[in-house]
Amino acid sequence: MDAVKIIEVKQSVFANNDQRAQLLREELKRRGIFLLNLMSAPGSGKTTTLARTVKLLKDELKIGVMEADIDSDVDARVMAECGVKAIQLHTGGMCHLDADMTRQGLDELVAGDVELAILENVGNLVCPAEFDTGAVKNAAILSVPEGHDKPLKYPLMFQVCDVVLINKIDVAPYFDFDMEKCREYIRMRNPNAEVIPICAKTGEGVDRWADWLREQVAAWRA
Amino acid sequence: MDAVKIIEVKQSVFANNDQRAQLLREELKRRGIFLLNLMSAPGSGKTTTLARTVKLLKDELKIGVMEADIDSDVDARVMAECGVKAIQLHTGGMCHLDADMTRQGLDELVAGDVELAILENVGNLVCPAEFDTGAVKNAAILSVPEGHDKPLKYPLMFQVCDVVLINKIDVAPYFDFDMEKCREYIRMRNPNAEVIPICAKTGEGVDRWADWLREQVAAWRA
Repeated sequence: MDAVKIIEVKQSVFANNDQRAQLLREELKRRGIFLLNLMSAPGSGKTTTLARTVKLLKDELKIGVMEADIDSDVDARVMAECGVKAIQLHTGGMCHLDADMTRQGLDELVAGDVELAILENVGNLVCPAEFDTGAVKNAAILSVPEGHDKPLKYPLMFQVCDVVLINKIDVAPYFDFDMEKCREYIRMRNPNAEVIPICAKTGEGVDRWADWLREQVAAWRA
Repeated sequence: MDAVKIIEVKQSVFANNDQRAQLLREELKRRGIFLLNLMSAPGSGKTTTLARTVKLLKDELKIGVMEADIDSDVDARVMAECGVKAIQLHTGGMCHLDADMTRQGLDELVAGDVELAILENVGNLVCPAEFDTGAVKNAAILSVPEGHDKPLKYPLMFQVCDVVLINKIDVAPYFDFDMEKCREYIRMRNPNAEVIPICAKTGEGVDRWADWLREQVAAWRA
């Protein structure tokens, strides 16, 4: 297959990221583009979840995906194979994306006619939570092997998320993962966060997540 | 049990972290203290691995553990229950520890007579790799559920590590993890890194890791 487009995003020179993020969000509203910021630790299954999501939604929505990584273009290739527009953002070692870095990617991505833009953030449960990317909604994935105590240890990530996907529930029998405790810890950080258990590998629960996303996109573009 | 000591480490005001780290290392050499910096993504099993390690080594070495976390004191409690001196470092939201933050913890930890000090860094595969903590050796854990492609995506972490523990090998049958590819990708980043597959939960392979650590401590204190 063809090489995917790789953008070397430059670190923002703007001090006021919150303001830049707000401006980006207002522009997205005007243009009818819903931007989802998907975050998680490394290896939680962001790309596999996106591949499943895209399969369920690509016939009804024009989707574009930005894959942010410090290095490699593995993920953008996977997404391109799913039949959606995908670009790779290289952060040059940076541990997160801010609003201006996101805009650099979006400018490239939405040259076409994208309704749902998805940013797969750098795999990191700490720093990406500190920077508003300009996204309409934030989603986090926590996978069963990581343990149910993560909302205690990484509070901000769960605080800023509108929805938390609990991934890899197929391997729950092999790990000491307490789903009820996990839900309780997430509620401590953010009582309004939606919690959706899924298995991106088998597809279990992904339809519920796709429903949630579909509703959010429709409300934003209404 | 008693509450563990929690230190709120302050972000360093020193611009030259590399120099501060070097000074700390020289002081550790003079005092015969070996400092290990243990890094990984969230949920890779740092604390469980340390609990196993401490069990194997605590009768021959005086061990102290610093558990760095953004919040909670879960990990320091686990370590204290293993019968070693343990303190909790709170980073106040910071995604990594630098040399001066490490020193703040060490000053508290080695008030006693510690020969092997272990820093469990913040769970993050990106930022901690960028800051020399002053440790004598760096170790990283990559767990099977995270996937064998992580050295491609998080190059610096694997570049700076002297040893990589591949944890959770007990669940390998349930994941598409290719050990040979993983070794190859680690070698691409760092041909000198030791790679040791372990299962911290069952103890498999941990003796080999303890042997490696024992040798490093002896060489440093010789």
